[in-house]
Amino acid sequence: MRPNFDQPDPRLDLMLERVIDVPRELVWMAWTTPKHVKQWFTPAPWTTVDCEIDLRPGGIFRTVMRSPEGQDFPNVGCYLEVVKYERLVWTDALEPGYRPTHRPPSCGISHLTAVITLEAHGKGTKYTALAIHKDEEGRRKHEEMGFHEGWGMVLDQMVAYIKTW
Amino acid sequence: MRPNFDQPDPRLDLMLERVIDVPRELVWMAWTTPKHVKQWFTPAPWTTVDCEIDLRPGGIFRTVMRSPEGQDFPNVGCYLEVVKYERLVWTDALEPGYRPTHRPPSCGISHLTAVITLEAHGKGTKYTALAIHKDEEGRRKHEEMGFHEGWGMVLDQMVAYIKTW
Repeated sequence: MRPNFDQPDPRLDLMLERVIDVPRELVWMAWTTPKHVKQWFTPAPWTTVDCEIDLRPGGIFRTVMRSPEGQDFPNVGCYLEVVKYERLVWTDALEPGYRPTHRPPSCGISHLTAVITLEAHGKGTKYTALAIHKDEEGRRKHEEMGFHEGWGMVLDQMVAYIKTW
Repeated sequence: MRPNFDQPDPRLDLMLERVIDVPRELVWMAWTTPKHVKQWFTPAPWTTVDCEIDLRPGGIFRTVMRSPEGQDFPNVGCYLEVVKYERLVWTDALEPGYRPTHRPPSCGISHLTAVITLEAHGKGTKYTALAIHKDEEGRRKHEEMGFHEGWGMVLDQMVAYIKTW
């Protein structure tokens, strides 16, 4: 495993780690199926109105978030690692096909690479979400914008949604 | 395979395709072993004075090129795909561990992703080098700077070097 997956750099990385009471196979489905992603991916009252997934390294991960005022914010990323039920890695620093991006970073914060790690934990899952930024300013801005609250809230939304299945 | 590996976009991508008379296993070694890379990687009279390789997705690919005047130009990239004897993909848009880079692009041209594809061809190799740029300006600058001459020349150097083994 890459050193920074296990040992995040607190100057540059942000991490959310939590045990949730749904199995990791279902968490994997929630993360990798567009119709599911649209149900939980954005903190309410924002919504996710579109999602496109080509689940392989180099494939697209695209979402469109809509504000309560109706403004749309598209995000385009590229998967880097797809290890079923275990690890999902993507970045918005690359377009699909690994092309270096020409787009400004999502929400104007900082390009980032995200790593979702799932480990079996009893009947539930140890869930780790890691956000890797290019520099300290990117990490700080993302933290101030509410990384922990936002990523925690959508995780709650995801768990509640999975329980309706 | 990603669409742009097979069908490069002529507005954005540059490609060098050639059949060479050395087997692909040796070409793979020449590309993935630091002591070998230093022997052929930079068009003479430039030299490659340092090379670091961690041969796995997320691992580092770092080189230092030295000009005839003695000025050093470091390049840091991150491997994306490592398929032994077949395909090697890396980008300088990411640092090792997939961190979005904070560095300006190498030689000030454009961040790029490179794809080396090796196919057996009789006793030799069909060698394809693909450079994927973020935009048309990046492709044009790289072409004007001598992509075809440069990548062709270092391929000649590599083949000649392999023949000394």
